[in-house]
Amino acid sequence: MSQQSSTPTYELLYWPTIPGRGEYIRLILEATQTPYTDIGNASSTGGKEVMAALSSDKTHDEHGNPPAFAPPMLRIKNAGPNGAPLLIYQTPSILSYLGGKLGVAGDGSDAEKHWVLSHALTALDLSNEAHDTHHPVAVMQYYEDQKEEALKKSKDFRESRITKFFGFFERVLKGNEEKGKGKYLVGDKLSYADTTLWQVVDGLKFAFPKELAARETDFPLLMGTFYPALKDMDSIKAYLGSDRRLQYSNGLFRHYPELDRQ
Amino acid sequence: MSQQSSTPTYELLYWPTIPGRGEYIRLILEATQTPYTDIGNASSTGGKEVMAALSSDKTHDEHGNPPAFAPPMLRIKNAGPNGAPLLIYQTPSILSYLGGKLGVAGDGSDAEKHWVLSHALTALDLSNEAHDTHHPVAVMQYYEDQKEEALKKSKDFRESRITKFFGFFERVLKGNEEKGKGKYLVGDKLSYADTTLWQVVDGLKFAFPKELAARETDFPLLMGTFYPALKDMDSIKAYLGSDRRLQYSNGLFRHYPELDRQ
Repeated sequence: MSQQSSTPTYELLYWPTIPGRGEYIRLILEATQTPYTDIGNASSTGGKEVMAALSSDKTHDEHGNPPAFAPPMLRIKNAGPNGAPLLIYQTPSILSYLGGKLGVAGDGSDAEKHWVLSHALTALDLSNEAHDTHHPVAVMQYYEDQKEEALKKSKDFRESRITKFFGFFERVLKGNEEKGKGKYLVGDKLSYADTTLWQVVDGLKFAFPKELAARETDFPLLMGTFYPALKDMDSIKAYLGSDRRLQYSNGLFRHYPELDRQ
Repeated sequence: MSQQSSTPTYELLYWPTIPGRGEYIRLILEATQTPYTDIGNASSTGGKEVMAALSSDKTHDEHGNPPAFAPPMLRIKNAGPNGAPLLIYQTPSILSYLGGKLGVAGDGSDAEKHWVLSHALTALDLSNEAHDTHHPVAVMQYYEDQKEEALKKSKDFRESRITKFFGFFERVLKGNEEKGKGKYLVGDKLSYADTTLWQVVDGLKFAFPKELAARETDFPLLMGTFYPALKDMDSIKAYLGSDRRLQYSNGLFRHYPELDRQ
């Protein structure tokens, strides 16, 4: 989608070449076939543009937007005060913005809107814990310098945390099965909670392939219905097969065989 | 506020006796003088009621609400489908719900609404990192069993993370100084981003008193204007002096002298 329209409304600002937390934003845009520009990957100067938008030493940008703590950021044409570009940051805040605009935050009721946000936040908590398995002590230092702690953290993550979160989402899918058919967490249609949870499961399959394979049948709705159904949606399938879908590497989800089930 | 109305619209469901993440919800309710019941602390059976609402082995509650992953939860009278009680969970989702209903999510524009949410999420990220200083490896195990890792994590947290987050919020306050006078992060009035950031700073003052004292003058707006101004608001001041304000202990913010600046 991203390169077809010359001036899309939405610009994603995220580090180039890695899926990272930017992927949660890309996925809901792609699932809804919404045109956007992935600034970091759109040109060779994209990374610099992301750095500039982050304005990490400024008190605001030239349009009056406050500074952003970290990418991802979303810039939306004409949506700010006086028609200026609006810049927002924080994955859940961007998702909640897009959810409302793109009709992927439930049925419009307060209830579904906040259930979608709550479930997305819970999936993102699991994503953060997955990150901390390889950086348990110091986010700015190398994995190799905190490997002993990473081994302990990963053991706990695999044995306690994945099962707790997956068990929770299995129950949510079960509770919504009549409407959602195991494919949707809330109501009878796709929401950004679904794309977000899907990406976390997919990232964990990359990072902990043995652990996830061993747990596959413990969560029949999540792993047997939800995960493949979303992957098979026309828009998502086309996206996953395109070069806009970036490969996992040394980002949020990392595959260190020693941290996986042995 | 909480005990004056016999049937308030809002019920907070959180573990009894500790401030924890429930405090982010209490503070915005108290700041806006909104009647609520703090179920966990309202009676001797409150803790059981919180456990029951969490329904950690169910697929939904009797009103059709999905399960909650963890407290805090907010139950809102008549706000669910068909007038049933609505149950939502996740601190940022509850704050965003209350923000809209209580008029403490900016000026009603998309811009301020999402800046408030983004800043609140960033303050809560710092809150989570503060928790992880005493539980860097395994959330369900004792501090004493991960003390070596906690010492490393706390050093990084004090030296890199507090300064990064505080420096960020100092810039946000500076960028909004014309409207916010250093007292508000967004616009010219109180939002739930303010009460949330305030609680994180207050919790850090309890957990790392030496570190915070040493950094006091590095962040003049945050520590010199914002923090005391909010503490001195009539509604907050009354709350902080009441027995509804629970004491810090062994919860989210913990004071272990060995983890503080030496």
